[in-house]
This record gives sequence, structure tokens and C-alpha cells, in this order.
Amino acid sequence: MTSQAVLFRLAGRADLPAIVRMLADDDLGSQRECYEDPLPESYYSAFEQIDHDPNHELIVAERNGEVIGTLHLIFMPSISFQGELRAQVESVRVDKRFQSQGIGGELMKWSMERARQRGAHVVQLTTHKTRLDAHRFYERLGFKGSHLGMKLSLK
Amino acid sequence: MTSQAVLFRLAGRADLPAIVRMLADDDLGSQRECYEDPLPESYYSAFEQIDHDPNHELIVAERNGEVIGTLHLIFMPSISFQGELRAQVESVRVDKRFQSQGIGGELMKWSMERARQRGAHVVQLTTHKTRLDAHRFYERLGFKGSHLGMKLSLK
Repeated sequence: MTSQAVLFRLAGRADLPAIVRMLADDDLGSQRECYEDPLPESYYSAFEQIDHDPNHELIVAERNGEVIGTLHLIFMPSISFQGELRAQVESVRVDKRFQSQGIGGELMKWSMERARQRGAHVVQLTTHKTRLDAHRFYERLGFKGSHLGMKLSLK
Repeated sequence: MTSQAVLFRLAGRADLPAIVRMLADDDLGSQRECYEDPLPESYYSAFEQIDHDPNHELIVAERNGEVIGTLHLIFMPSISFQGELRAQVESVRVDKRFQSQGIGGELMKWSMERARQRGAHVVQLTTHKTRLDAHRFYERLGFKGSHLGMKLSLK
């Protein structure tokens, strides 16, 4: 079998079950997602907001017609750094069946190039302190772990 | 002299010089901001984008008619956490002349309450690893330093 090319594109509404499946199939994600058929309406409501906001891009990696990776790219106007645009990456996942094949790296590089073309001066992300493999993955892509990421739950 | 009440409100265009002055008056900020009169146009362009986006709130603390604190509150729709809204805080500053008076804490609490009312499930931020005072400040407000914050410069 020859290896199929991986395609990167903006997600559509029909991709949402595959995206949520990947978010849920993870040590941390399994505690907070709800992958059911049909999906809870809250996922679709969030998708509509993302889809209508030009500063948000929900991206998927597709191979052979199947969605096997995702990330959420956000562009943020900012006063700091002389008003330069920032890009932020959230919710990065590659289907567990297809990890360690370089798909996550290609997905990130495609998204970083998109951020560069849009004029962002930085790409930022946070990753849980326990995700040591993720730290190495992002370091290989050139990211520096210069910051502490802090969260406060409001619920 | 009785202490004047501190007022919190959305920033207007006329507040921009005071905001940039505070961003620049800082070990890290002094290397990347340009506080001149008039301000570089790039600051005003970023302000217009923020001002027109209902998911962005540039907030100032004002006392006795003077802007003495600022932060940038961002609301982000997200697929993860079952489509719940996130809030993110960026570019927090209190005028050096008025630090250690509780103004930063009040500004954060006012903003956190605003995020709660909007329905955000979490407030997130990153702070440079060298800003140890900031880490303690956010921990006192209930934030947990659970994540590594990573950045990649695109320039």
C-alpha cells in the first residue's frame, strides 16, 4: 500500500464528530468531553461561532477521506508588541491510530505558515505540564517554553 | 488626602497613550514597545480591531481621572470542554507608581467576574517564567500554574 497524502483544510460542520472523537480519546480529554451520537448541541453552537469569526480557524488533517488530526488556530489583535497580531494554537490532536507518523508536525507547520502569511509575529500555545511528549514535539518545531500557563476554573 | 475610588471600564482610543506607557515601563516591555508622541499608527490600528470585536475587551483602571492599570480580556469560543467559552487575559499592567496597593487584584477580579457573567468556564493566561511576583499574584487569585506556555517567533 502506498502512503496517502495528508490534506489540511478548514473544518466543516460535518467534521465535528471526528474532531470531538479525537479530543475525547486522550487522558485529559476523556474527563471533559462527551462523544455521543448525536453530539451535544453545545459543540455545534461553538462550531458556528468559530466558523463565523474570521479570527478563528478550526483546521483538520484528512487522509483518504478520513479526518485524522485537528487544531484550532486563533488570530488575536493585541496592543502589546507595537500592535502586532498574535496567533494561538489550541486543541491539537492526532488520531491515536496514526500518531508518530509526522502528521502532527505537518499540521503544525501548515498552520504556522498560515499564521505567518496572515502577518502574526508569534505563535503561542500552552500544554499541560504532564504532557512531556508534547513539550518535546513543540520544541522540535522551534517553540520555547518561556512561560508559565495558569488557569482558573470559573465553575 | 482620602484615597480615591478606582473605576474599571472599557478603554477608548484616547486611553491608548497611557496604556502603551504602562506596557513599555517594564523590563520585558521596554524591549518591544515604542512609547512616542504621537504613538506609532500600528497601536491605533490594533486598537480599532479590538474595539470592533465583541470578543475583545481592552480594560483600564482609572483613578481621579488618570489611567493607572490595564488588561486585555479575550473571549474564545472553543470546541473543547464540550464547546464551552474560554476567557484569556493578556497584557496586564499597573502603573509602577501605584503598585502594591491592590489595584491589580481588583482589576483582575473585576475582569474575572465579567468573564463569569459572559459564561466563560475558565480564565487562562501565561506569564513569563521570570516574573515570580506575578506567579504569586495570580496564585493568590486562585490561578493554578498547570501548563507550560510556549512561544515561537515568526519574525
